[in-house]
Amino acid sequence: PRIFGHEASGIVESVGEGVTSLKPGDHALPIFTGECGERAHCKSNESNLCDLLRINTERGVMLADGKTRFSKDGKPIYHLVGTSTFSEYTVLHVGCVAKINPAAPLDKVCVVSCGFCTGHGATVNVAKPKPNSTFAVFGLGAVGLAAAEGARLSGASRIIGVDLVPGRFEQAKKFGVTDFVNPKDHNKPVQEVIIEMTDGGVDRAVECTGHIEASIQAFECVHDGWGVAVLVGVP
Amino acid sequence: PRIFGHEASGIVESVGEGVTSLKPGDHALPIFTGECGERAHCKSNESNLCDLLRINTERGVMLADGKTRFSKDGKPIYHLVGTSTFSEYTVLHVGCVAKINPAAPLDKVCVVSCGFCTGHGATVNVAKPKPNSTFAVFGLGAVGLAAAEGARLSGASRIIGVDLVPGRFEQAKKFGVTDFVNPKDHNKPVQEVIIEMTDGGVDRAVECTGHIEASIQAFECVHDGWGVAVLVGVP
Repeated sequence: PRIFGHEASGIVESVGEGVTSLKPGDHALPIFTGECGERAHCKSNESNLCDLLRINTERGVMLADGKTRFSKDGKPIYHLVGTSTFSEYTVLHVGCVAKINPAAPLDKVCVVSCGFCTGHGATVNVAKPKPNSTFAVFGLGAVGLAAAEGARLSGASRIIGVDLVPGRFEQAKKFGVTDFVNPKDHNKPVQEVIIEMTDGGVDRAVECTGHIEASIQAFECVHDGWGVAVLVGVP
Repeated sequence: PRIFGHEASGIVESVGEGVTSLKPGDHALPIFTGECGERAHCKSNESNLCDLLRINTERGVMLADGKTRFSKDGKPIYHLVGTSTFSEYTVLHVGCVAKINPAAPLDKVCVVSCGFCTGHGATVNVAKPKPNSTFAVFGLGAVGLAAAEGARLSGASRIIGVDLVPGRFEQAKKFGVTDFVNPKDHNKPVQEVIIEMTDGGVDRAVECTGHIEASIQAFECVHDGWGVAVLVGVP
């Protein structure tokens, strides 16, 4: 048995020996792709996929001693991806905790611990849309909206949201989405629709659904020669 | 019938009406991926794949009038990829001609019209090795040597050449290759050899042979997290 959950926000209750970056009372987010700060990946400017603390769905224990911190009736309950946030209290490696501004409302900032970072980071760090460029985002869930927000902040002038649920467009406008395409409304592939709308394809596309079909559409809707498609969704 | 050939150097014999960028006597290289200078790709900083003059193996005629400039015994002979350099004289679109310094020896600079640019450009414009980084190049032919030279000029500190012909290492040293790996000398996959040599993989790899196996090796020999493999060879 394991305690699931990886997206959350919370307050530091206590810290272990040697921990200096956090103290009790700090507001914090759990991060399942932690950073030890010491090894090659953490020192590289090109990757933060720390090989000590990266996502590991097999390991159900703390790194330091290979033991679990949860139990019930004397039997161990294992951790999940170093976070296990479906719980009132949890125990994390210090590298998996990000201190945040205590003014941030904990009930809202929790989405920054995974969903928001994922869509926003993939956009601003990988897709890197340029000012006045065109952008397509597949899926207008939390991750897709964060991608749209990243494109808006990067200065993209046209942000096309693609989703099967028409009602999502209204909300998406708040995150910068300027155009909405519902594949169900068209008799031709959505990539062709986008190519026609943008005179050759968007400059950048970010796929946030994980559907294979949408991944292919994202690749095929970017502009010949310079378009970049970033796949965030895991099929 | 067609006149083949795309790599060459030469001297401008005459220019057509309206051509201002070249004059008779200029030294020049034919470029089969030309640039019209006017359309979206040519104005983009992210691509030079001009959709007017890009490589087109079907088209055997000049763009302006759809006719060929070659004939024999009254019968047309067609062009190849806008260059047809296996000939004493050829006719090119002005966008497919690059003016060069007349001091450059024509018998040597001809390789700049394709092979050198391909390996060098893929390295400095796409792989972009950083100073003091590690680099692997698969294939030490003309394209691979140009890739190595690009890595050397970029400041890569370790450049691993991979080739099945041991004799190529001596020549490759002149282009910056510091280490040589012959896959035949090892009982394990060459990507494992390279990963061991570089403590986790090279920062950048450029594949210049077109062998599927080497393409896979190039992908698999780059460092986890930040490695980039660039495939130049066409399988």
